[in-house]
Formats: sequence, C-alpha cells, structure tokens
Amino acid sequence: MKKIAVVLCGCGAMDGSEIHESVFTLLAIDELGAEYKCFALDKPQARVMNTASGQELNESRNQLVEAARISRGKINKLQELKSNDFDALILPGGFGAAFNLCTFAKDKAQATVEPEVERIVREFYDSKKPIGAICIAPTIIALVLGKAVNPTLTAGEADDTVAVELEKLGATTQGCKTSDCVIDRENKIVSTPAYMNAKRISEVREGIAKLVKAVLEMG
Amino acid sequence: MKKIAVVLCGCGAMDGSEIHESVFTLLAIDELGAEYKCFALDKPQARVMNTASGQELNESRNQLVEAARISRGKINKLQELKSNDFDALILPGGFGAAFNLCTFAKDKAQATVEPEVERIVREFYDSKKPIGAICIAPTIIALVLGKAVNPTLTAGEADDTVAVELEKLGATTQGCKTSDCVIDRENKIVSTPAYMNAKRISEVREGIAKLVKAVLEMG
Repeated sequence: MKKIAVVLCGCGAMDGSEIHESVFTLLAIDELGAEYKCFALDKPQARVMNTASGQELNESRNQLVEAARISRGKINKLQELKSNDFDALILPGGFGAAFNLCTFAKDKAQATVEPEVERIVREFYDSKKPIGAICIAPTIIALVLGKAVNPTLTAGEADDTVAVELEKLGATTQGCKTSDCVIDRENKIVSTPAYMNAKRISEVREGIAKLVKAVLEMG
Repeated sequence: MKKIAVVLCGCGAMDGSEIHESVFTLLAIDELGAEYKCFALDKPQARVMNTASGQELNESRNQLVEAARISRGKINKLQELKSNDFDALILPGGFGAAFNLCTFAKDKAQATVEPEVERIVREFYDSKKPIGAICIAPTIIALVLGKAVNPTLTAGEADDTVAVELEKLGATTQGCKTSDCVIDRENKIVSTPAYMNAKRISEVREGIAKLVKAVLEMG
C-alpha cells in the first residue's frame, strides 16, 4: 500500500489549508487504495481570519492544532517527516500555504520558505518521489526548485499575477482547467489550480482526484 | 435547480460540524446539479477543543464564524432560513450537532433543542420537504419529531447507546453500513451513520452521496 505525506498548515481558506482541497486530497488517496499521514508545523499561523467577514482577528492559533480538525485528530510534526517513509508528498492550497509555509503572499518572487518545508520538498525531489501541489502551493515548489529544475506548473486557467511570479522563479507555467491537472513527468511534479479559478466545488474535486492519481502512478 | 439548506455549527469533529461530512454534503449537492446555501446559529460554540490533543481549550468561538471556514465565507444566520425558499434540509454531524444545536451530548433523551433548530426541522417536516441527517444529527430529528411521527433513523451499524436513546424518543432505529443510508419514505427523512462507525473516509463519502441523492429525489 502506497503511503502519501500530506502537509497541512491550519484549517481554512483565508489563514490555513483550504478545507475542500485538503479533504479531497485525503479522499482520493483513500479511494485509490493508498494511505495518508498528515503533517504540520507546530507553529502559530501568520494570521487568524474571521472567514465570514473577511476581517483579521486579534487571536493566535497553532497550525498543527488547527490542521488536526481536517485530519480528525491524527497529525504529526513536520520535522518528523522523512521522505524515506513515504512514496509521495502532497501540498494542498489555501492562503496558509502562502502565509504560513512561505512568505509568498507578502513577498512574491522574493519570498522565503520555512526551512522544514524547504527540506522536505528537496528530500522528495532528490529521492525522485512525486510531489503534488494544489492551488497556490506550486509557488512553494517554484521557490525551492524553480531555478534549478525549471518545473512546469499551473497557476490556473490564465496567465495571471501568480503565473508571472512563478516564471520569475524559473518555472514554466501552463494554463489548466480547474477539473484537470498539469503533469511534469521529468520532475515528477503535478499541479492543479483548484480554487485559483473554481466556480464549483465538484470541479475542484475532479482536478484533485486527477492530481492524486497522477502522483500515485509515478510514486 | 433544486435548493438545499445545510445547517452547520462550527468547524471540526470535536466542537463543531464534522468537516468531511459537511464537505461531502456540499460536493454531492453540486455533483447532482442542485445548489446549496449554508446556515448557522450566530452564537458561541458550547466548547472549543484542541483537536490534536483532545483537550478542551479556554477559548470562545462563534458557530457561524467558524462554519464559514467550511463554506468558504458564504454563511447565513439560521433565523433567516425559511423552508419556503428551499427544497430540502440537510444536517451534517460532528459533536457540534450534539453540543451546539441541542444538548444531546450531555442530556441524552432528556436533551433540549435550540429553538431555531427546532423551528426549521418542524417547518421542513410540516411542508413535506425531505430532511437528511448525518452521523449524530438524527438525534435532533428524534428530539423534535420522535414521539409524534415515529421516524426510522440509523445510528450506525449496531444497536449502540445512541440507538437506545433514539428509541426512547420514539424513533425506530435501523442498522446501516457507513457506505449506505436509511430512507424513511413516509416521513421523507434520510440518515447515514458516517463517522459513527467509519473506518475509511471513502465510505463516509459514499454514504453521504447516497443520502443526498435520496433527499434530492424526494425533494
């Protein structure tokens, strides 16, 4: 049975892992007969949002504790993740991926990546194990590997502002429908736009199911 | 296009709406060509849990604000929900359903139901519109309608402690696999056990997809 590591960073589109994207990742892994284990940084989120009003709250929440809501309690510290124990890595999106795992939301192509996140992306890449990146998470791949390996990534249907930044970082971008994914076979990197452009939840489910299938086939 | 009202009560299995169950409800509604609108009480949760440790936190969180994480921001106050505007009602589970929407988690068959929750369950039932109840949410149906209409409900695969309480409230209980649902055609009430017994996320998805299909067919 193939084992997939999933990296979460809170619980919710505005300040953590996007919930639908994360749940559809876990669902597709299970449907395809593989198993997952979820990991998160044991650190505060960069921000906490009132998701109903869109206003920032004066609160502190821990990425790992909140991510456990998505994984139903079972969650592990990111520093315990070793690529040797897994066949593939998947990074769901949500603003948490661009606020908590790296600083892309603020710093764009000048962003820095959390050291433990950079370590695991490099480890999986160097051991030729596939990596799936959803929604805004391809920015992490480009920040860590862009100039060195020129990955092909999607940032959605059109060449928007995110695609421009990915190109600056050395990636080649490719337009992609929400219900589909882009497969870079040479680098074993798969990406899907999910809520970059989605109009319907079922499109997001479809794109992520394809991403997980491609990741498992290469893993 | 049929319209389904979904009642949420926070975000997470231990203190709010169970995330997987809620997301699979929204997914199935969209996949079947219907549309959903999410509602919640604008009130504090009964408790806030650290879902990684299982410990209660000394914090207050609002049911509607947290539920908006699941619905990606679009959320409405439960008092604005009128059965006239919708074809069916669905109540996902999670401990929030037994802590925030009624007091079943503490008081079992002696529990009280939040007045606005009782109102909408009665409204949908009286206007002969179907109601779907997932996981622990069938307890709300039994508390509001049990003695009067003797609904057939499931509380999981076996006759466990929840089933005993449902029977006390006037319901007839029926064992059901996680991947299936129980349809009470006379009362137009559909229930599925979801995380009452689930071993795999994909079983939960399957049972909820069947529940939503049955609800839409009767709606």
